[in-house]
Amino acid sequence: MESAISTLVSQFKTFAGKDGSSDTLSKEEFRSLVTSQLPTFVKNSSDPAVIDQLMGSLDENNDGELTFLEFWQLIGSLANKHGGFSQ
Amino acid sequence: MESAISTLVSQFKTFAGKDGSSDTLSKEEFRSLVTSQLPTFVKNSSDPAVIDQLMGSLDENNDGELTFLEFWQLIGSLANKHGGFSQ
Repeated sequence: MESAISTLVSQFKTFAGKDGSSDTLSKEEFRSLVTSQLPTFVKNSSDPAVIDQLMGSLDENNDGELTFLEFWQLIGSLANKHGGFSQ
Repeated sequence: MESAISTLVSQFKTFAGKDGSSDTLSKEEFRSLVTSQLPTFVKNSSDPAVIDQLMGSLDENNDGELTFLEFWQLIGSLANKHGGFSQ
């Protein structure tokens, strides 16, 4: 389980490090991560409206950047759905 | 990234399925998961007080069982710390 967690952290950092702040995802970094790393879990990610909506729903302080914990909420809800859990 | 997420879901289910509700972790299942799967990320997990405190901090509705999303908050905070992120 620790290796899977480390994988998620390091992949987040790889994408977050592409431009601007190296610890947060800009919208472009987020789009790049979602389309390449979550092709099955996030449908229609090539649609800019899908990315806009998802980013808006996660960016709690509306600064246009996603922190690791904001991003973690997304993959938690994807994982919850993938696992077939009820809530 | 999807395979790492799937690993976390399936390992959660393995432990959650040991007794009672197969979709949630009892305290004993939680202890078993933490000691075997998170030996580096959670220190002193052999101390019952550590498990009690961690479980209490995660079980938001205090029903003695952790849902997947409650558990996800724990590994998010462990991952955030492991990654050296600021918040």
